[in-house]
Amino acid sequence: MSSSENITTARIEAFSDGVIAILITIMVFDLKVDEPITTKNVWQALLKLSPKFVSYIISFLTMAIMWVNHHHLFHQIKHTNSKLLWYSINLLFWMSLIPFATNFIGQHPFAWQACFVYGMVFFMCAISFTLLRIYAIKKDLIQNTGIGKILIKNYFAIAAYLLGACISVISVYIAYILYITVPIMYFLPDKHYQTNN
Amino acid sequence: MSSSENITTARIEAFSDGVIAILITIMVFDLKVDEPITTKNVWQALLKLSPKFVSYIISFLTMAIMWVNHHHLFHQIKHTNSKLLWYSINLLFWMSLIPFATNFIGQHPFAWQACFVYGMVFFMCAISFTLLRIYAIKKDLIQNTGIGKILIKNYFAIAAYLLGACISVISVYIAYILYITVPIMYFLPDKHYQTNN
Amino acid sequence: MSSSENITTARIEAFSDGVIAILITIMVFDLKVDEPITTKNVWQALLKLSPKFVSYIISFLTMAIMWVNHHHLFHQIKHTNSKLLWYSINLLFWMSLIPFATNFIGQHPFAWQACFVYGMVFFMCAISFTLLRIYAIKKDLIQNTGIGKILIKNYFAIAAYLLGACISVISVYIAYILYITVPIMYFLPDKHYQTNN
Amino acid sequence: MSSSENITTARIEAFSDGVIAILITIMVFDLKVDEPITTKNVWQALLKLSPKFVSYIISFLTMAIMWVNHHHLFHQIKHTNSKLLWYSINLLFWMSLIPFATNFIGQHPFAWQACFVYGMVFFMCAISFTLLRIYAIKKDLIQNTGIGKILIKNYFAIAAYLLGACISVISVYIAYILYITVPIMYFLPDKHYQTNN
Repeated sequence: MSSSENITTARIEAFSDGVIAILITIMVFDLKVDEPITTKNVWQALLKLSPKFVSYIISFLTMAIMWVNHHHLFHQIKHTNSKLLWYSINLLFWMSLIPFATNFIGQHPFAWQACFVYGMVFFMCAISFTLLRIYAIKKDLIQNTGIGKILIKNYFAIAAYLLGACISVISVYIAYILYITVPIMYFLPDKHYQTNN
Repeated sequence: MSSSENITTARIEAFSDGVIAILITIMVFDLKVDEPITTKNVWQALLKLSPKFVSYIISFLTMAIMWVNHHHLFHQIKHTNSKLLWYSINLLFWMSLIPFATNFIGQHPFAWQACFVYGMVFFMCAISFTLLRIYAIKKDLIQNTGIGKILIKNYFAIAAYLLGACISVISVYIAYILYITVPIMYFLPDKHYQTNN
Repeated sequence: MSSSENITTARIEAFSDGVIAILITIMVFDLKVDEPITTKNVWQALLKLSPKFVSYIISFLTMAIMWVNHHHLFHQIKHTNSKLLWYSINLLFWMSLIPFATNFIGQHPFAWQACFVYGMVFFMCAISFTLLRIYAIKKDLIQNTGIGKILIKNYFAIAAYLLGACISVISVYIAYILYITVPIMYFLPDKHYQTNN
Repeated sequence: MSSSENITTARIEAFSDGVIAILITIMVFDLKVDEPITTKNVWQALLKLSPKFVSYIISFLTMAIMWVNHHHLFHQIKHTNSKLLWYSINLLFWMSLIPFATNFIGQHPFAWQACFVYGMVFFMCAISFTLLRIYAIKKDLIQNTGIGKILIKNYFAIAAYLLGACISVISVYIAYILYITVPIMYFLPDKHYQTNN
């Protein structure tokens, strides 16, 4: 399948940046006020867009966190190989479904099926990211400091998305709360990094 | 949330370039002549597109100015940290709403609500850019020369967009004039840079 | 057509990364659940999307393989010239038709014409990639080790796509099987690389 | 407008690459077979797309030539300043209208107005590119060798597009021939480069 010489991570970073930049911005396309508006119905038209806006904000935030983590991970990785490329491409594939899930949930915010699909897509993203990180650790591509705490966050995200997806059958509201805990958790300061921040 | 080692700005620049490049170009998508045209109605069809064209030009120009300023700001910043990444991502988020606002105003050029939303989106962009710059100054990430004059321009932009958005309730025309003064102001030569230009 | 000084491959890599990143992600745009859904018809709506999903996955995977191969090829090429630029642009042109073919086959999965067009587009991509590689070998731009095996894979891909396209007139199912053998073949481990993997 | 220190061309190249990569690929979006097809009408459906295909190919080719020339130009430029950024942005603005013009002409291939708009957009691109090159020459940012011949090609392109746009009122066919001469001319070998190719 491919060459095994140690090659730099420049292009996989550039390619990932490109794909994530596109994914993060094409979701904006679904935000449109198309109907003819009068002074009376314009706010209703905007209100009708609000589920799309909310899902856009959550997806934007979550993808931004993924990008920042990807950035930090690859900042540590000095050399790449074919398997690492494919772990990255696997992550990009699942991330590429985020605009689809975001559009789906934006149009049907209270359908548990949309809520379920949304959670499963993010679940697969979290799994893929964790697999990428574990591979990099296993192959000694990154230093081991602070890895433990980051992995716990990854496992929490995986659990939250899976639980949320399953609970969406019962209540989409609980599912949404679970989905939102993930970005919140990432923004909570943790001791390891705070000390040398 | 993340690692604090000093890392280079290469990827945040590449990512921002990608996002801004996409945002600046996807607006073109809304410019389309779809109806069947005859020799008679083609100019009317193009005329109907003219508000979209005008809003496209203003948005293109303003985003280009933001990119040039972003370019100059990050040219000075040698190292980045997580907070700077998030200030940048915050700016990109508000910039990502520009195509939405541009499409909205292009379809409803005389609705004060569209004019208001357009102004508010640019107001948030100007605020976000200023916060990014102030953080970079505060953390001594950039040199201090000429900073004062640039900040005054930033504050002027913030004021003009906020004032324009508020005035749009009374008159969209005055609002538009205020919005256009911002790019014009950026192109006016100022003494500091002129001397060493 | 243009300057012949030896120039680095940085920009052709960046440009290719950009184009491939866009192509690989814009296909997601065609995945949309637009109809109003109830608890009953939502799975049918998703089921109706399934041919689009399958064609998306195959196209994503095949483009990812092309990107990885492009990455490995240009990793070896140290300097470029105008002809190499145009061989690359030719490849990008044919790759740019993949979203069209993917959308076509996603909408009409059992029409042999769609299946034929899909195969022909990938056939042209495989041809273009092989021409690019042969040119690079001929001009001594890359080392010769392991080239033979890679070229055999390229020829196999060319043959599989052409055969698949022709057979689609008789049976689209056989054509699909042929199309899928290409990515599978690329993932099969081969001895040359395994030894030093 | 902004800082005048000599800065490298890395980001303007990356940004231009991004914008051109997006422009060159989003045109593919307009190529779609949407109607339900049967064995009988599929070729008609594809035939109906043929003007869009032809205009896509011409636009792709012309933008690719612009990118290659941009590549060669910036390969020679070692440092940039604000004015050069704005000459580049001006070029990108006019290039950003190419997908609009391409879509217009693809839908109305025999309307002289579409043909006129198409020619004028490329005329403005050619003008903008020439202004960029002249500025770079004037400021001694590039070496002078072979500049004369390239400028003659630029002037020829400007003339061909302007003439084509004007003639489109009389005959769109003659206009198309003029438009196509420009890419052909760029591919003709010229002595200067051939000697050291």
